[in-house]
Amino acid sequence: MPDKNKPLGGEGLRGQSAGSTALCTVGKTGTGLTYRGYDITDLAHHAEFEEVAFLLLKGHLPNAQALSDYKHELVAKRGLPEALRVVLENIPADAHPMDVMRTGCSMLGNLDTELDFSEQSDKADTILAHLPAIICYWYRFSHHGVRIDTAASEQDTIAGYFLDMLSDATPTELHTRVMHCSLVLYAEHEFNASTFAARVCASTLSDIHSCVTAAIGTLRGPLHGGANEAAMDMIEHWASPDEAETALMGMLVNKEKVMGFGHAIYRESDPRNALIKAWSKQLSTSSPDAMLYDVSERVEQVMKREKDLFPNADFFHASAYHFMGIPTKLFTPIFVMSRVTGWCAHVFEQRENNRIIRPSADYVGPEHQDWLPLEKRQ
Amino acid sequence: MPDKNKPLGGEGLRGQSAGSTALCTVGKTGTGLTYRGYDITDLAHHAEFEEVAFLLLKGHLPNAQALSDYKHELVAKRGLPEALRVVLENIPADAHPMDVMRTGCSMLGNLDTELDFSEQSDKADTILAHLPAIICYWYRFSHHGVRIDTAASEQDTIAGYFLDMLSDATPTELHTRVMHCSLVLYAEHEFNASTFAARVCASTLSDIHSCVTAAIGTLRGPLHGGANEAAMDMIEHWASPDEAETALMGMLVNKEKVMGFGHAIYRESDPRNALIKAWSKQLSTSSPDAMLYDVSERVEQVMKREKDLFPNADFFHASAYHFMGIPTKLFTPIFVMSRVTGWCAHVFEQRENNRIIRPSADYVGPEHQDWLPLEKRQ
Repeated sequence: MPDKNKPLGGEGLRGQSAGSTALCTVGKTGTGLTYRGYDITDLAHHAEFEEVAFLLLKGHLPNAQALSDYKHELVAKRGLPEALRVVLENIPADAHPMDVMRTGCSMLGNLDTELDFSEQSDKADTILAHLPAIICYWYRFSHHGVRIDTAASEQDTIAGYFLDMLSDATPTELHTRVMHCSLVLYAEHEFNASTFAARVCASTLSDIHSCVTAAIGTLRGPLHGGANEAAMDMIEHWASPDEAETALMGMLVNKEKVMGFGHAIYRESDPRNALIKAWSKQLSTSSPDAMLYDVSERVEQVMKREKDLFPNADFFHASAYHFMGIPTKLFTPIFVMSRVTGWCAHVFEQRENNRIIRPSADYVGPEHQDWLPLEKRQ
Repeated sequence: MPDKNKPLGGEGLRGQSAGSTALCTVGKTGTGLTYRGYDITDLAHHAEFEEVAFLLLKGHLPNAQALSDYKHELVAKRGLPEALRVVLENIPADAHPMDVMRTGCSMLGNLDTELDFSEQSDKADTILAHLPAIICYWYRFSHHGVRIDTAASEQDTIAGYFLDMLSDATPTELHTRVMHCSLVLYAEHEFNASTFAARVCASTLSDIHSCVTAAIGTLRGPLHGGANEAAMDMIEHWASPDEAETALMGMLVNKEKVMGFGHAIYRESDPRNALIKAWSKQLSTSSPDAMLYDVSERVEQVMKREKDLFPNADFFHASAYHFMGIPTKLFTPIFVMSRVTGWCAHVFEQRENNRIIRPSADYVGPEHQDWLPLEKRQ
């Protein structure tokens, strides 16, 4: 029975504090999102993803020289170790891409083990530099039979590197710019489930690959990282806004869940939505599938009118990624490529002032059971 | 600043309920440990590990026929898939054995993916059946250059299978019996950090391999799973009880941490200690290193006398495993082979009545920061 002395106890820890952070505020005024005090709108409009990664991982925004140095460091870390490539080649094409990310990161931990926390910054940067190649190497090998050279790209940013590895074609300036924005928007979000899993892992003083691996597995769940893929699976079935509205009204009557709307913490709107929506609109103008943008806008209108729900960060990401030619199954791995910065920053923070995260549970099982020898059991 | 409305908030969630469980009580009377109402002493004295695995995973103790069927099922699941063997062969000998376990379980998730929760029981059994082979295959290949046949053992229990795979010699009845006891003692322990990590992962409705992978990474930390290895590293340096006492007194003066003593929840004693201690004593009588038992007993006496601390489950596990010829670096992987039953049972329980585990955080970072363009930063 629940203990009456623990009135805040219970499922999901909703509204309960599990520690402190200097990294992020979510919805402090109902709509806001800040990374180390900087508003997400400023960051998304002006910053490269590497600036935000630096902000989260090193504690402050870099100046021009520090940013340039950091980008060079990340470029120098590229090129997957051979043993990791062998692992990726042994993962079948029908595997879940998040299982590939989780296994790639875990394998990297065997080859580049963090032996001491003084190495944490270097190890985090190496993971950050390798994640785009992990997913692209597996995808291109298993789906196209191509062994890409993960050290060969001339792109000097993670956004460009990912797009380059994915298609072997130099990405356009527009696509690279949108990827920067997307990676910035997904980089950090306080004590969400995957970040909290990383902190629970870190709290036993485990290594950083274990923490990131735990977080990837947690992000994999459809209640967390899968929303933009689910949104894509939904909207791509509709050939016009009117068809979308009819189908959506039917879904609402049947009380089906519509992915990409509402949020556990934001009450009025998701500040990331307007930012990615604007890019989706711009991308649509040069896409043969431009109708997907109109469909998405209609879905937004209907959800507002019928349920008073707003799109979250995931909804317009679906069409934006699609307009850039990114396969739907790679949407959540992009989330990993970005959120790894937040995860690692939280691991660093947990280590700075650590106490093992070990909550209690309310016991609801049987009272004392007498032992019955095997031969006497029915 | 911490919100005054959340008086229980804070680091480590100590004493805060994070949900309910019917699986386990820890220290309800100050000393007790029960699995689904059964006292750990009854289980450790009378049950095979497979009986306890069945109890945790299926909800009740099996009768003789059900136990026999379950053991046959687990035996039939043995034999690592080729792609998993390739992965293990590509992990270097100097890797951390817990990184091997984590990567092996994650890779298995690519080859035997849980597509629907109706498969959870089957997938959990497959993980349980494979974990001893994952560590032994890597260990024997990387350390001895031997490719063991992981489907070849005639041992019909996990305890016997592990000992058989580790040495290629038929294990003695005594060693097998001790392994059963050890696996029973480590199987479950309520909302410890690794189990809690598995539940956080499960709460996004992620797959079971992600949950177990997260738990393995969390158990890897020295504040959690590494205590029996640390105890071994300590006691093997001492050639006699007197030498141990002198060195230990020096450690206490220097305020060094002595691993294997005290517990976050038990106040008077750890009910698992007497059980494994008795086996350690019996094993010592036929070991050339019998002195290690006398050393361990002296350490126990000194810790009681000087610090009023009692040995936990880990301390006499060190000498017991050593007397059975198990390399110290494999101690924590054995913990995984056992605790995977508790982890999976908790994942099933979380899924039955799920709410995403998403706590809040106290923000202690900077207030609003004005954006400064890159070229204007110092």
